[in-house]
Formats: sequence, C-alpha cells, structure tokens
Amino acid sequence: MRIAIDAMGGDHAPAQIVRGAVEGLAFLGTGDELVLLGREDAVAAHLPADASVRRRITIQHCAETIEMDDSPVEALRQKKDSSIVVMARLAAEKQVDAVISAGNTGACAAACQLKMRTLGSVQRPGIAVIIPSFSGPLTICDVGANVAPKPHHLLQYAQMASAYAETILKIHRPRVGLLSIGSEDAKGNPLVKQTRELIKQDASIHFIGNVEGRELFAGACEVAICDGFVGNVVLKLTEGLADGLFKTIKREIVSERPDLIKDFEPVIKAVWARHDYSEYGGAPLLGVDGICIICHGSSDHRAIKNAVRVAVEYVKADLNRIITERLTEEPVNV
Amino acid sequence: MRIAIDAMGGDHAPAQIVRGAVEGLAFLGTGDELVLLGREDAVAAHLPADASVRRRITIQHCAETIEMDDSPVEALRQKKDSSIVVMARLAAEKQVDAVISAGNTGACAAACQLKMRTLGSVQRPGIAVIIPSFSGPLTICDVGANVAPKPHHLLQYAQMASAYAETILKIHRPRVGLLSIGSEDAKGNPLVKQTRELIKQDASIHFIGNVEGRELFAGACEVAICDGFVGNVVLKLTEGLADGLFKTIKREIVSERPDLIKDFEPVIKAVWARHDYSEYGGAPLLGVDGICIICHGSSDHRAIKNAVRVAVEYVKADLNRIITERLTEEPVNV
Repeated sequence: MRIAIDAMGGDHAPAQIVRGAVEGLAFLGTGDELVLLGREDAVAAHLPADASVRRRITIQHCAETIEMDDSPVEALRQKKDSSIVVMARLAAEKQVDAVISAGNTGACAAACQLKMRTLGSVQRPGIAVIIPSFSGPLTICDVGANVAPKPHHLLQYAQMASAYAETILKIHRPRVGLLSIGSEDAKGNPLVKQTRELIKQDASIHFIGNVEGRELFAGACEVAICDGFVGNVVLKLTEGLADGLFKTIKREIVSERPDLIKDFEPVIKAVWARHDYSEYGGAPLLGVDGICIICHGSSDHRAIKNAVRVAVEYVKADLNRIITERLTEEPVNV
Repeated sequence: MRIAIDAMGGDHAPAQIVRGAVEGLAFLGTGDELVLLGREDAVAAHLPADASVRRRITIQHCAETIEMDDSPVEALRQKKDSSIVVMARLAAEKQVDAVISAGNTGACAAACQLKMRTLGSVQRPGIAVIIPSFSGPLTICDVGANVAPKPHHLLQYAQMASAYAETILKIHRPRVGLLSIGSEDAKGNPLVKQTRELIKQDASIHFIGNVEGRELFAGACEVAICDGFVGNVVLKLTEGLADGLFKTIKREIVSERPDLIKDFEPVIKAVWARHDYSEYGGAPLLGVDGICIICHGSSDHRAIKNAVRVAVEYVKADLNRIITERLTEEPVNV
C-alpha cells in the first residue's frame, strides 16, 4: 500500500503534516509506504533521522505550492508542479492507493475531480464531512463539490455516505435524513422533493425522511444529504457559530467574573475535545475512482495521523468496491 | 392606528401574548387600538380589569385555533375561523394597519401571502429575520417564504431588507452580503452568481459581495440575502446549535465541576440576554401590501411588546412607501 500526503497543505504545514505522517506509519503494514509531496528541503527538515522511518517515507519534490487563499481554478492551471496537482496525478495514475491533503480544499477537490475518473456509475463525486455532533459522528454529503446537483446525484450521495458510515465509522444501518425545512413530506424545495421520492425507492438506504437544521446535530440521523451549496453553508456556519459562542462566553466571564476564567477554561477544552473533528481524519471525496481524504486547513498532527488511519481502513475494507455494488444506475427515463 | 394580534399563537398563548399586548399599549397613541384575535373567554381571562386598558383593546372572537404543528396548507383550508386566517383577512381588507402572530409560522406566512396583495412591484414576499449576532443585529432575508426564488426576487429582498434595517433598526447604509460558499465572485451556485450581477447594478444597495457561513454572525454585514430554503436551514441550525452547545457545556460542568454550576448559570443567562431575539420584535414579512410581523413560537410577553413597538414604528415611518419607491421593476427582458 502507498499513500501520498500533500506535505505543503494546511495552516500548519509542513511541520504538523510531516509529524502526523510519521505517527500514521503505525497504521501501515511493514511493506507499506508513505509519499510526502512538497519542497524537499522543507519536508526533510521535519523528518526524524530514524532509519526505520526514512525507509518507509519517500519525499517527492514539488517545486510549487498552492496557497490556502489561491483561487482553485487559477492555481490548478498555473501551478502544475504543486503538491496538490502532483498528488491528484499520482492518484489518477494509480501510483498510490490513497491521497491526503489539508491544503486548499477547493483546489484539492477540483484537482481530484479533474484528474481521477468517477467510480462505476457515479455521476458526480461529493465531499462527505464527518461532524462530531452532540450525539456522535454525523456524516454530511455533499459539502461543496457539487453546488447544483440533480436528485439522482443526491441519491448516490445517500448510497455512498451510508456505505462510508457503515464501513469506516462502524455505524450499523445508519439513518439517512434529507436536510430540509420541515419534517412533513410536502416541505422543501423542488430538488428535495424529487430526491425524497428517489431515495424512498431504495430499500438499501435506511431513510428517515426530512431532517431540519434544528435537529441536525441532536441525533436525528447519522447521515445527512444535501446539495453542496447548502452543505457548505451549514459546515462553515457551524464552525463560525461554535467559535463565536465560545468567544462570547469567554468574554462575558473575563468581563464579569475574571476569577472564574481558570476554572472555566478546562471545561471548554473538554467540550472541544469531545467534539474534535480531527478524530475522524478528514472528509472523503466520495465517488472518485481512488481514495482522496480532504483534511481541514487547521489540521494538526493528530488529524493527519487519523487521516492515514482512515485511508488505510478505506483501502483494506475495499470500500470503493462496496460503493460500486450499491450504486443505482440512473434510469434511462430520468 | 389599529394593530391586530393573534392571541392564540405561540407556545405561551394566550397568557404571554395578552400580557405583551397590554404592555405594548405604551407605544400606541391615545386614539390607537389593539385587536386581540382568539377565543373570547380564553383571551379575556388574561386581560386586566383596568378600564383604560379595556378601552384600547378589543377582542375579536375566533372559534378555531391553528396549532403549532398543524400542516399550514390543511389548516388554512379547514380552519377559516382561526385567529391566523381572520388576522390575514383583516390585514387584506385594511381594517388594521398591522398584524402580529407568534403562531404556526408556515400558516401565518401562507395566509398573509394568500390574502394580502404584494406591494408595488414586489414579485414575491420574503421573511426577514433579525438575529442578534455577535456584533449586533443581522437581518437575513428570506428565511422560508420563497424556497425557489429567481435572482430578481433576491434583488428585491436586498432592497427591502436594507430599507427595513435602515428604518427600523436605525442602521446607516447597512452592508448587504450575499450568502455564498466563498468570497470570490466565481463562487456560488447559479442563483447566487446571477443575483450578484443584478445587485451590483443597484447603487442604492451597499453591496459587499459574497459572505460565507463562517463570517455571517461575526459582523461581515448587517443584511444577508439568501434563498428561503438556505435561510430557513441557517435559522434552524443556528437555534439548534446554540441550544446544543449551551446544554453540552452545562452537562460538562455538572459532570466534572458541579461546584461551578451556580457561578456559571448567571454567565450563560447574561450571554443569552445579550443575544435575545425578542429585542427585535419578530420577523417582518416584507413585500406584502400591509404589515405582518411573525414572532418566534417561543415568544414571551417581551417579544410581543417589542413586536407592537416595531409595528408602530413601521406604520409611522411609512416603510412600505419607502420600499415601494426603492424597488426595481423587473426588466422586461429578464
């Protein structure tokens, strides 16, 4: 098994990425290998001298780096020798079994979609993010790969994300909800209404109907399906709101009860730790012919280590074969 | 001035609604009047005996009540003598200057849209909710009236919500953001991209471009525009997430530091108070020919009192005339 990691991607690259990769070796078999993509000197500086590590990690030099705030389209066109572009090429050419990046999400998703084929009868890949909700991991698909999906795409997201939740998150028959604006069948926009009829017909999906934003993180379902625009708004709103609320609470304490702040900080840390996305090792780009794990830009070594773990489990479980078998081909008359 | 209030609507009806109405009399002139709609005995039971109050509050008996979980479409068809249906009719017939309800939001919005005409060249009314964000009130339009809008509808939401924020919230030249999934112009779904081009051409709007979910509550703009499906998801997600986070923090304290709970509760109360939506008196249904303020189902007397205040300000400022003057008519070739 060979797994390629974009060593230049993310807010803490390359130091935390390389550290996470080294820690991730623990999940690999003896013959397996990691390939770190990036500027050779910058990456090598963070590798331990230990020969047993060096033997299982190769650095593949890439002269360019796509920055976090680069425009994805421009960057992919201009930076052909960047770690992200090279990573997507290695995956497309099946030189590696899986790729991992905490870099520019848009560029990473676009590069993999452009270079890799889609899997079996998949029409459009989707990004599935795993959010540590108040009642366990919630898989939301899509969160930005496909901003104008058709009902059949959402059906395939339900099939693929269910397979992921079962296989990687070990959730038995995950309940699938369709993100909408009311629980009754009549609620929703045209896309949601058409998708509901499609998903209902697939007995392999444990479909519970519509879920609302209010109950999304409260255990209404284990898999939530939505279009990539809505999913991306949900994801970023969640981050912004959680961050803002904690800051507001802290400011209130600092201003009104400064004596409490030292007691309160461990509480907040414990809550954060319990809802630590890095546990889940990043967001798989489901539906490409290969394995691509997209990590959060702020990933630290633990997130990268867990991404390696997930990639290894993904390969070993042969999840893409499971997905291919489950997928419904689009009926000719749709 | 006459303002009708649905006395049967909301989780705390009729007690809190009637109490809020009585408190709201403070904002009315001596010749002005409130009309409480609902079951006469139930409403009267909560009215003080005070003759100066009774003189300015009329009860209009409605035999039926639309429940919070009734299907809006069914309820409007079957409960013709409900407080919501009668309220919408009074508004449509211009028997009252404004109406207020904390009842079934879907039924209230639908009844007013069905019975009242649209204002001037408005094509589709939109619900504008005012959220007490981390940096002041944020007006989001639409949050559910129109789940499949056209770009021109969103342009009109920007125009109407700007006028509301200026006139009622007293925000000078409110910055308007278009809710999207990245700040660059190229980001978004087809609706957002087309809307951006339209809004850019209107010099009366202080348009700042796309805003992302992450920065939505952090002061990026004072008015955010989105389709009603996305807006409704955002609204409910925000409620669910805030609620869940506070509960999680509290549970953590109860389990790990029970000695701290009595210190912590006032902090949480203060944070809630600072982000108290009831300050803003409900969500106006912008674009109907009349004034309809939709309050949160959990509204207490303060929320209703503030809704009366907002309704009075809305009438006095002649906001609908301002909106009519600002609205762009749809070009014939769009």
